[in-house]
Amino acid sequence: MEFKKILEEKSEESWKIYIPNLSIDCVVFGYNDATLKVLVTKIKNQKLIGLPGGYVLKTENLFDAAKRILFERTGAENIYLQQFKVFGDLNRSEDFFKNFDDNIWNKQRFISVGHYALVDYTKVNLVIDDISDACEWKSITELSEFMMDHKIIFDEALQTLQKQLNHKPIGYNLLPEKFTMPELQKLYEIILEKKLNRGNFYRKILRYDILEKLYESRKGGAHKAPDLYKFDLIKYQLALKNGFNEGW
Amino acid sequence: MEFKKILEEKSEESWKIYIPNLSIDCVVFGYNDATLKVLVTKIKNQKLIGLPGGYVLKTENLFDAAKRILFERTGAENIYLQQFKVFGDLNRSEDFFKNFDDNIWNKQRFISVGHYALVDYTKVNLVIDDISDACEWKSITELSEFMMDHKIIFDEALQTLQKQLNHKPIGYNLLPEKFTMPELQKLYEIILEKKLNRGNFYRKILRYDILEKLYESRKGGAHKAPDLYKFDLIKYQLALKNGFNEGW
Repeated sequence: MEFKKILEEKSEESWKIYIPNLSIDCVVFGYNDATLKVLVTKIKNQKLIGLPGGYVLKTENLFDAAKRILFERTGAENIYLQQFKVFGDLNRSEDFFKNFDDNIWNKQRFISVGHYALVDYTKVNLVIDDISDACEWKSITELSEFMMDHKIIFDEALQTLQKQLNHKPIGYNLLPEKFTMPELQKLYEIILEKKLNRGNFYRKILRYDILEKLYESRKGGAHKAPDLYKFDLIKYQLALKNGFNEGW
Repeated sequence: MEFKKILEEKSEESWKIYIPNLSIDCVVFGYNDATLKVLVTKIKNQKLIGLPGGYVLKTENLFDAAKRILFERTGAENIYLQQFKVFGDLNRSEDFFKNFDDNIWNKQRFISVGHYALVDYTKVNLVIDDISDACEWKSITELSEFMMDHKIIFDEALQTLQKQLNHKPIGYNLLPEKFTMPELQKLYEIILEKKLNRGNFYRKILRYDILEKLYESRKGGAHKAPDLYKFDLIKYQLALKNGFNEGW
């Protein structure tokens, strides 16, 4: 059944159960094979890609709605999920539905609360919903054209993530439990889209005091086995909440 | 005319012109006499104080709505205004209107986009709207009890402001055009609610490279006249956009 027909059939139910004019869009980042990836969907018979999103039930807290929407798509729980910006300009999405009847749910003006999420790539089972052909990971350097204003939402999310590296820890939801310092540095470099000096990185990241050095090292390479680290989760969560006290 | 009657009379018009279930709440900070103040309203015949807020016209961008709401209350334009969080829990405000008919506009569930603003205290003309007894500045250390979840919104705004001192400049909308270094330090101390070391403050603030030292000093005191500074607005705006590059 085609996209338009499905949305028309769902419209009446949507008007009943959801808060009108309000949506949630999610920018879901995953990290694998030294590549930062983002979760995108493709609506049936459409070329453009989109961000996974949804609506808020009249009986549901906003944040619970965001968690539910992500869970429905990825099966993932306990992920790092955060609002970052509301997108509230006129004509964000109305044009996209110009061939629909005016009273169809999806053709209304929507103000969208942008959330971004960091998820463990290995713990995700992607679900394709009934209006989509695909729900898949794409490298952030190989994205094709987005629908509506989703490119703007994606760009803002990436900028938020980059800025957040300056005052919050990152990595717990993106790296495996045990990792080497070069692997952590690589994650930062991929997100920041630039090379970092090795010595400066070590000094700075150790000063943040969120790492625990393990009494084991990675076996198997030709070189000296590199030390393994993991995050000290108590310190990590505290820094996530309060920010690094680099400031005043 | 009492509060309830006014809202009932306005209800029909509100349903017509505004986006349902969506509101804006503003935490407006001003600085005067070495005191950080916040703009609060008092609804007629109610003891509790509230934050100024409003709704988004169906024909209006979200950010324009926030600017309009602030302008209507303060007459101030070109102020520093920024979204900081969406408050979307159930029962944020519905209980407050429990004696109203269920179809009255104000009794609906509202998801509120929190904005905070920094305004020049001297350029503001406060306007009391028709449901309020007062719209006035209160020292943040002398606030009485807030209505609904406005205390939570205020606390989040203050925390956002405090954290922002770590990565963005502040002061342009709060201080007079020309100021001394001790005056700037005092502003930081008031916002952070702690004393700062004078030498560290000087070094750090100068390293941010947003100040211009003037070839004049403040006349009149018994001591050596202190140097005057102003913000280099080009550098200031750039740092506001990109954050201080203290990071990686």
